[in-house]
Amino acid sequence: MITIIHSVTIVTLNRNNDIFEGYVTIKNNTFEKTGEGSPTDIEIEQADKVIDGKRKWLLPGFINTHGHLGSALLRGAGDDMPLMTWLKQVMWPNESRFDRETVLQAAQVAMIEMIKSGTTTFLDMYHLHMKETAKLVIDKGLRAVLGRGMIGLCPAHEQEDKLAESVSLFETFNGAGDGRLSIVLAPHAPYTCPPTFLKRVAETAEKYRMMIHTHVSETRGEVEEHIKTYGKRPVSHLDELGVFNGPVLAAHAVHVNEEEIEILKNRGAAISHNPASNLKLGSGVAPVPDFLEKGITVSLGTDSTASNNNLDMFEEARLSALIHKGTRENPEVTSAKDTLEMATLKGAEALSLENLGKIERDFKADFILVEPGQAHLTPWNKDRILSHLVYAARGSDVTDTFIDGKAVYSDRQLLLFDEEKIVFEANQLAKKFL
Amino acid sequence: MITIIHSVTIVTLNRNNDIFEGYVTIKNNTFEKTGEGSPTDIEIEQADKVIDGKRKWLLPGFINTHGHLGSALLRGAGDDMPLMTWLKQVMWPNESRFDRETVLQAAQVAMIEMIKSGTTTFLDMYHLHMKETAKLVIDKGLRAVLGRGMIGLCPAHEQEDKLAESVSLFETFNGAGDGRLSIVLAPHAPYTCPPTFLKRVAETAEKYRMMIHTHVSETRGEVEEHIKTYGKRPVSHLDELGVFNGPVLAAHAVHVNEEEIEILKNRGAAISHNPASNLKLGSGVAPVPDFLEKGITVSLGTDSTASNNNLDMFEEARLSALIHKGTRENPEVTSAKDTLEMATLKGAEALSLENLGKIERDFKADFILVEPGQAHLTPWNKDRILSHLVYAARGSDVTDTFIDGKAVYSDRQLLLFDEEKIVFEANQLAKKFL
Repeated sequence: MITIIHSVTIVTLNRNNDIFEGYVTIKNNTFEKTGEGSPTDIEIEQADKVIDGKRKWLLPGFINTHGHLGSALLRGAGDDMPLMTWLKQVMWPNESRFDRETVLQAAQVAMIEMIKSGTTTFLDMYHLHMKETAKLVIDKGLRAVLGRGMIGLCPAHEQEDKLAESVSLFETFNGAGDGRLSIVLAPHAPYTCPPTFLKRVAETAEKYRMMIHTHVSETRGEVEEHIKTYGKRPVSHLDELGVFNGPVLAAHAVHVNEEEIEILKNRGAAISHNPASNLKLGSGVAPVPDFLEKGITVSLGTDSTASNNNLDMFEEARLSALIHKGTRENPEVTSAKDTLEMATLKGAEALSLENLGKIERDFKADFILVEPGQAHLTPWNKDRILSHLVYAARGSDVTDTFIDGKAVYSDRQLLLFDEEKIVFEANQLAKKFL
Repeated sequence: MITIIHSVTIVTLNRNNDIFEGYVTIKNNTFEKTGEGSPTDIEIEQADKVIDGKRKWLLPGFINTHGHLGSALLRGAGDDMPLMTWLKQVMWPNESRFDRETVLQAAQVAMIEMIKSGTTTFLDMYHLHMKETAKLVIDKGLRAVLGRGMIGLCPAHEQEDKLAESVSLFETFNGAGDGRLSIVLAPHAPYTCPPTFLKRVAETAEKYRMMIHTHVSETRGEVEEHIKTYGKRPVSHLDELGVFNGPVLAAHAVHVNEEEIEILKNRGAAISHNPASNLKLGSGVAPVPDFLEKGITVSLGTDSTASNNNLDMFEEARLSALIHKGTRENPEVTSAKDTLEMATLKGAEALSLENLGKIERDFKADFILVEPGQAHLTPWNKDRILSHLVYAARGSDVTDTFIDGKAVYSDRQLLLFDEEKIVFEANQLAKKFL
């Protein structure tokens, strides 16, 4: 299967940050060619599908490195509360009543939102019905990294059950869907996982060569509590328990000090920066300029719709670009280019996914088309595209989303989901909750 | 002319914050009735136009209290720079080459963007071709507050010319367009207006009973410079010169201390909070929770597309709601309701516009319809609408925009602008600039 998209402005995000008018040739799930100008007549003849990308921008799809799809039906239930109150009063009581149908309905609402706003890969850490979510990812042609969220505040045999469930998920689904699916180990957080359990997680990660994804130092209170309990800060604690022996993606990392940043750097850990969620829950602002200065891989995540409350990566990118400039009173930190990289290729790096996140030969053909011919993206020229993507564009500007070389959203039509039906059913289902 | 919109969910933002299923009756430019349930057959018969608002939300249009429309063609030209560098290297050299065509084209691009994303009233402070902008506002059915921006770093006779131009604008256009147009006095800022000139501005404001709109303490450096030059902070300085003797709307107010907040409160000044611009230029975060606690009127503004870089008030509201929670590490400040009020009725208050900013009998019929039947606004019920509007919605969710009882945007069609033509021409024109 060969697809050509021509007459399009290509935003490569490659090493030279090339932006040019040209075409891409996709063979099966991979970019075979990206070139300036027009494809030859022979190239056009040999293609199975030829798409005119006139007056559109083509760029890598977004990679959302932290979320909890299963709680999507709690969007807007209980705002303006601190993290712990919100967890205890809203999230946990509602989630305890979630059945298979709720989780799958929520996952579909979230997937639709992501596809329509240009996300082609997402990480989902959730504790319910992850095998069903995995099947959905395979069926719907998405790319995802899934981890069965494990809270360790339970008897040892329950901890082992959760670990076994994670390993079974890995053995069944890692690499499934033509490699679109990866499985990680997902201990919830140092404050919800006792040291003995975290040690077991680290051992299991090593044994199966699994990546670890976990929340780290999201709130100030959690860090203070940790110091009281263990006499040290969470990052050193995780390090001593062996958690950083393999690849780790740490979500949030809002309250980490210089010494901890040094550990994260030396251990090669990556960060999932979740600015909207961190702001909304009053958690704070992560030291992203310091991470970047140290060369730590920083990616972007939305967290769940319950704490964001949307999954639009344009907004997450904009927020990340703006907030560090503002709070550091320095407009030169977090440029548009840095930020777009965080939303794409750094996301791939953070998730240990190879050949993903750029428009480049031999890279996976996960990309989106954006329609710039609208007032809010006017005027534009090549020099302003990165700026417009970060500071002016929004999810609804995406017209097409391709994953692994296949369209899942085409000319603003979802090809594999019936949005009207799913939205209707989700609204009905949600009546059971707050 | 009587219009009825029925079967719609009405978000009133009235004193009780009522949200209900019902209908509104608009007689000429005013809400004559807002009611639960359905209009009677007689009411329907007597209406000139009947609109089915099924599965939509009806809410007040946004009021954008600070912007510079004329510079819209500089969107994305020169990002990631500090305010003064950006002004000197990008804004001023480009603006010096702006002619009438550039300014009017820019104004139209900005107006289209605002209408499509639900803004029904805007303030424009600009120094070029303001009479032309005024005529455009009248022709296109918009509601606006215009002020001829006055930089006072020039000989006294030039200062007087600028004042005279402002007064002439006031005498010609204040109250024009059936009252849709108001004119204010707009000295640029304390750092660009010498004390003698500010005194003249205050006298002129008093003489003509004009409101004053000015930038105040946008950056830390500007305040430090002010203290060096005048031995006091800008707000006390403005107060001593008589600027606060009448109504004042201060844009930004990022670097104001407790004493200055007290002066602003006692003098009844209102604030235009511009979070995106303040963050993007690295200016900082305004002390909005302190303003709100003191009962100061805080409204929202986008600033220009050159420093934002969009005019989407949904985003401005979301940013304002998020950033103060995050930087104060307190999710209970700046609730969804506070924020929506800042974007609507507080905007009207800040601009001294009466009977505007709520869906209520005798209020002006400036409102928008929003389409919630999409994944990113799912699930929803009455309790979640304010949350969805602030934390999940975006400009493209607006389907209809009414100003003064008349549709200017209907079912996603602009009624008075040809967007394709204007976008094309703006892109051509912009080639002259950076």
